[in-house]
Amino acid sequence: MKINGKHYRSVWPQGDDAFGIIDQTKLPHEFVTLTLRSAKDAAQAIRSMQTRGAPLIGAVAAYGLALALRADPSDETLTTTSDTLRATRPTAVNLAWALKRVGDAVRNRPRGERAALAWKEAAAIADEDVAMCESIGRHGLGLIRELAAQKKRKLNILTHCNAGWLATVDYGTALAPIYLAHDAGIALHVWVDETRPRNQGAALTAFELGGHGVEHTIIADNAGGHYMQAGEVDLCLVGTDRVTANGDVANKIGTYLKALAAQDNGVPFYVALPSSTIDWSLHAGRDIPIEERSADEVLKLAGRTPDGRLATVEIAAPGSAAANPGFDITPARLVTGFITERGVCAASEEGLRSLFPRASTSSA
Amino acid sequence: MKINGKHYRSVWPQGDDAFGIIDQTKLPHEFVTLTLRSAKDAAQAIRSMQTRGAPLIGAVAAYGLALALRADPSDETLTTTSDTLRATRPTAVNLAWALKRVGDAVRNRPRGERAALAWKEAAAIADEDVAMCESIGRHGLGLIRELAAQKKRKLNILTHCNAGWLATVDYGTALAPIYLAHDAGIALHVWVDETRPRNQGAALTAFELGGHGVEHTIIADNAGGHYMQAGEVDLCLVGTDRVTANGDVANKIGTYLKALAAQDNGVPFYVALPSSTIDWSLHAGRDIPIEERSADEVLKLAGRTPDGRLATVEIAAPGSAAANPGFDITPARLVTGFITERGVCAASEEGLRSLFPRASTSSA
Repeated sequence: MKINGKHYRSVWPQGDDAFGIIDQTKLPHEFVTLTLRSAKDAAQAIRSMQTRGAPLIGAVAAYGLALALRADPSDETLTTTSDTLRATRPTAVNLAWALKRVGDAVRNRPRGERAALAWKEAAAIADEDVAMCESIGRHGLGLIRELAAQKKRKLNILTHCNAGWLATVDYGTALAPIYLAHDAGIALHVWVDETRPRNQGAALTAFELGGHGVEHTIIADNAGGHYMQAGEVDLCLVGTDRVTANGDVANKIGTYLKALAAQDNGVPFYVALPSSTIDWSLHAGRDIPIEERSADEVLKLAGRTPDGRLATVEIAAPGSAAANPGFDITPARLVTGFITERGVCAASEEGLRSLFPRASTSSA
Repeated sequence: MKINGKHYRSVWPQGDDAFGIIDQTKLPHEFVTLTLRSAKDAAQAIRSMQTRGAPLIGAVAAYGLALALRADPSDETLTTTSDTLRATRPTAVNLAWALKRVGDAVRNRPRGERAALAWKEAAAIADEDVAMCESIGRHGLGLIRELAAQKKRKLNILTHCNAGWLATVDYGTALAPIYLAHDAGIALHVWVDETRPRNQGAALTAFELGGHGVEHTIIADNAGGHYMQAGEVDLCLVGTDRVTANGDVANKIGTYLKALAAQDNGVPFYVALPSSTIDWSLHAGRDIPIEERSADEVLKLAGRTPDGRLATVEIAAPGSAAANPGFDITPARLVTGFITERGVCAASEEGLRSLFPRASTSSA
């Protein structure tokens, strides 16, 4: 995707001993890129959410692990660095998946070759993510095209959090079909949930959609149910951090509430995902660990002051405690279908198996 | 209720030509009171939400109308001032109810007596609101006591927005049972939805509960469904701005989403209201006008900077539009029951009629 006319991915190699990311905590107010030179840099960038989005942090962690192996290609470094990177965000399964891929690529190889092999594997993970997101976009475009033919008017699509190109290496998952539909000339408008507490919707999704010229309106997370009741949402389209074998969906906190409202109002609710997000080793959503994040994300908020500075303000009653679960589980029964790189399927084990028959729990 | 040991109501007369309110837009960061000297002052305070909460703005509008009649006791002033005040917040029915009460008290009386009669009626509305809220508290306490006996552990109660003493003249509606239960020694903890976009939960409900010593935790509006899934919510308790004859509930945007999650998880969902909130003239929630508020409430947020100043920051992608419906409709089917000043009843016309058999559409 382009920013000010220049094409960017969300992660890119710089030579063979560093890689670049966009500092997403500065968006939408400032566009700043960062150079990461170690696994420690990568872990810190993931933990602080300078880089975020389940598919993207898989690629970032892979590059981070490759840098650690350049410094020390030992088995011990492979294990401890993988463990550290995996622990930065416990809910996303792509992180573990990408680290396992790099590990598998180097484990039985000579130490002298490991850094180069790991670097190559990280680059492959990034390239495959781009190809997967483009495929998700094409399959989702089919759905949107059908819906547009049926409604015969501008479509209203609601999305939660950011599952756009900033959350992946390029294109996005939930936003990929929207970009392709927009490019194909289908009239659409996107309701953007602001997505408290970190406001990735208002900050990142709105920034992306605006940059690409897609009509959109930011709403409080509280408002989506009202618009569904009013018939002003034709489709909900979200990403996910982990899907279990039965089709349950872990995604940004609040997704479950929108899925309930979609069901109550007969609005189709689709989840877009690359197959790396499927955790075949877990049967159901209740088995997914839910990340508890800092209370400060609820009690404080960063923004731009009228004179253009970035500032963080306290917004709650002084002395009150806050809790901040990062994700919730949307049960498969509330999901109309999955949009994957291989096509659209039902949100069930049978549905997933119809597209990914050979995936096994051990490959996760 | 007390602030720093001093008893306050949320509105109080100052002599017979002015009245005081707390500037709720400054809470929780600063405690500032305002003196209002005209109907124009009152309309501005309601419109800007310096004073808010359905029951409270009824009393404030009544005092405002009385001040207008002191300046000019004509029928024309009665009509035009009532119209102006009624239009400040179109969703709350108490506003129309209180203005009608003052109008009925003065309409067929000599002009020389009107100001004093109106002032007396406004004071009566305020006093009756206090008595009603105390009764709501007592009836809700019965419910909480039963639930505590059944659970045999600390109760977790979730509330949305602010339906506390700051939203009424004293005690509150949804929070009245919580205060009385706390005072009765029942162990409880309150999940406080922050309630974007204006954050009345994080700012006002948390401020109130903290002031009274009630254990509470602020959460993003997105998080309540997750806690219900996890079994960490025993009861939802909210206020309302208007209830239609069939039991549909207009309340702060996002209430509907919590009611859906409560139903999905078998959590009782109660709405606390004084009977002045019932609009017998409307059959169902779809007939209630939904106030559309300023986009700036979504795009900007006020808080306290680290050096203690109040500042407003922009939090969204520059150039993106926002929409801001103030309320949504929770269908009666999702409401376990109503807690009124006359007791607890089913959320249905039969339920309401069982407690208020003589209320008629013409009295609304």
